[in-house]
Amino acid sequence: MSFHFRLLKKSSDSKARLGEIATARGSFQTPVFMPVGTYATVKSIRPDQLLNELKAPIILGNTYHLYIRPGHELIRKLGGLHRFMNWPRPILTDSGGFQVFSLAKLRKVRPEGVEFQSHLDGAAHFLSPELAIEIQEALGSDIMMVLDECLAYPSTETVARESMELTLQWAERSLRARKTEAALFAIVQGGMFENLRGECLERLLEIGSEKYQVEKIVPPSGFDGFAIGGVSVGEPMELAYDIAAYCAQRLPEEKPRYLMGVGLPEDMVEAVDRGIDMFDCVVPTRNARNGMLFTSDGFIYIRNAVHTQEPGPIDPLCSCYTCKNFSRAYLRHLSMAKEILSSILNSIHNLHYYLNLLSDIRLAISEGRFSQFKRDFFARRTSAPREEIE
Amino acid sequence: MSFHFRLLKKSSDSKARLGEIATARGSFQTPVFMPVGTYATVKSIRPDQLLNELKAPIILGNTYHLYIRPGHELIRKLGGLHRFMNWPRPILTDSGGFQVFSLAKLRKVRPEGVEFQSHLDGAAHFLSPELAIEIQEALGSDIMMVLDECLAYPSTETVARESMELTLQWAERSLRARKTEAALFAIVQGGMFENLRGECLERLLEIGSEKYQVEKIVPPSGFDGFAIGGVSVGEPMELAYDIAAYCAQRLPEEKPRYLMGVGLPEDMVEAVDRGIDMFDCVVPTRNARNGMLFTSDGFIYIRNAVHTQEPGPIDPLCSCYTCKNFSRAYLRHLSMAKEILSSILNSIHNLHYYLNLLSDIRLAISEGRFSQFKRDFFARRTSAPREEIE
Repeated sequence: MSFHFRLLKKSSDSKARLGEIATARGSFQTPVFMPVGTYATVKSIRPDQLLNELKAPIILGNTYHLYIRPGHELIRKLGGLHRFMNWPRPILTDSGGFQVFSLAKLRKVRPEGVEFQSHLDGAAHFLSPELAIEIQEALGSDIMMVLDECLAYPSTETVARESMELTLQWAERSLRARKTEAALFAIVQGGMFENLRGECLERLLEIGSEKYQVEKIVPPSGFDGFAIGGVSVGEPMELAYDIAAYCAQRLPEEKPRYLMGVGLPEDMVEAVDRGIDMFDCVVPTRNARNGMLFTSDGFIYIRNAVHTQEPGPIDPLCSCYTCKNFSRAYLRHLSMAKEILSSILNSIHNLHYYLNLLSDIRLAISEGRFSQFKRDFFARRTSAPREEIE
Repeated sequence: MSFHFRLLKKSSDSKARLGEIATARGSFQTPVFMPVGTYATVKSIRPDQLLNELKAPIILGNTYHLYIRPGHELIRKLGGLHRFMNWPRPILTDSGGFQVFSLAKLRKVRPEGVEFQSHLDGAAHFLSPELAIEIQEALGSDIMMVLDECLAYPSTETVARESMELTLQWAERSLRARKTEAALFAIVQGGMFENLRGECLERLLEIGSEKYQVEKIVPPSGFDGFAIGGVSVGEPMELAYDIAAYCAQRLPEEKPRYLMGVGLPEDMVEAVDRGIDMFDCVVPTRNARNGMLFTSDGFIYIRNAVHTQEPGPIDPLCSCYTCKNFSRAYLRHLSMAKEILSSILNSIHNLHYYLNLLSDIRLAISEGRFSQFKRDFFARRTSAPREEIE
């Protein structure tokens, strides 16, 4: 097992922490943001730019999408996902669970797994915890996720408990199914119920205990990290922050904590403050394609008429390729003309913003001033005028 | 006037010639291919890649498109097209004529100019030779084109003559309208009638004569180059080759010759053989977006099932970023998934193919072996199996 997490520093006046994850494909510091590469590409970005210009330390691949198209067996045959998409650094793959529950049609959940129809052609598929691991191992993932059931929001406690029980069974089966050295993260579920989150977490930890390993014959050492799933599903973000805080307090210090699918810049700052180490989100690339661009003050909508004649960059403080070379007027023109270069330049900027924000967060933690950083971050945003979409 | 054309070498067994064009924004050798940057962007390509990776020496901008959106006054205000799109090397702009006749709605041609409605919103516009020059000067073009009427194919000789007369009047008015140091090319029209092409050409040359300048008070020295227009409009390419050959023979040796809108790789090789120096075409970028990719043997359709599991590159002889880093299997996957990276990687490859082909052509001419080069080029294509689209 080449996966290691090391805690480098804890904040004195916050739960924020600086860590380091080592994998066979390289090490990186946490808190970290992972750009999403759904179909074996971070949308609109060349991998060499992601590597050398944006310096993304790790990206996320979507198991559901790659299983449907082009298929994990093809990617395995071609040498794995890293080689397929020409990305040498670590890749975290999700389990496909979230997409089965959000994208696929005619789902039927059984204890063995979940039947569903592809969102592309309606073809019938069956995803089990074992298959989710097999796919992720075929892809050559560095950090795999267990298959979990993603609960709709809101849910009753009864439904949430049933779902949590299923997720626990699937987590153990995922652990047993692993055949490679890739790391495996468990996912804490339990809806918006703290008691269920707490119980789920305790029982996931138990699976990693020596006693459990001996009695139940599961592989030693348990899970390599813990994700908090079932957030960013439509609930108020305050609720998600509370769940993150509740779980982070109870998770072991020596394992990384990943808040799945989160989020906006302010969400990540809030979650780091509560002890979260890892994030992923489609927002920087998706919003880039729609013309919503992040700045030190918040964000702008580049298609708004106010930018028509603006000779300055998106953000004068930004050092990305887009801001160093192009005016808002040009970027607005590209977006209005639906040019592909619009998606390219906007995605570069938004990803740079995200990766740079996490880099600033890590620096602030390492220098013992995260709380001050957080105050400044929000002060700047609330003092700036907020741009409305036209 | 900082525009100069110098003839460097003539082939002994072909009309192919090596030349050099010098402009205020840099020099380049001919024969040359100019990637098309319609809306102030060569589609799917970052300008730094076009500059440093693909080493395009000059690009083309479309006056019609930029006049409609975002407008030449905006671009003038923002410092010109080069600064707007961050492209430091020369730009040739067309006059907008071709697009008015191919894209715009409800055209009405009068001696003064052409009334038309925008293809975007139906707004009424009026383009005159004087306005075409004003727009191109606002853009900061390095090489401008005179406004011409583009004839439909086929046309009768009577219609073709009328059109040619109008184009001649407009050419002279364009020359009188020029206020800057930018170069100005005339356009030889006359449909598919050699006698008309010959007459048009003679009368354009006459406009540049000393006698005409004194009598008619036009600016000295005439046109800086000559384009052959009205080809690639649906006629058999053999006809276009004949027109190109006919015109090239009669055009002065000391001015560059530009075959507008041409073409496929084989068209450029044929046209160079007939004495043409400059080309532009949307084929490399447009076909890239549709998955048609050029190779040393011809071309492939990357979406064809035969490429599904192919671990090799588009062309093992190609040194572009795409071929050095990605398999056909990956490129097919990206194209099927409609990923933006598909357009990016395919466009890089096709543009590299075009620019590299012209570079090979120039080398062959300079080494006195263009005819052999042409034979090898076609032998290789006819011996290779031709891929059909599925």
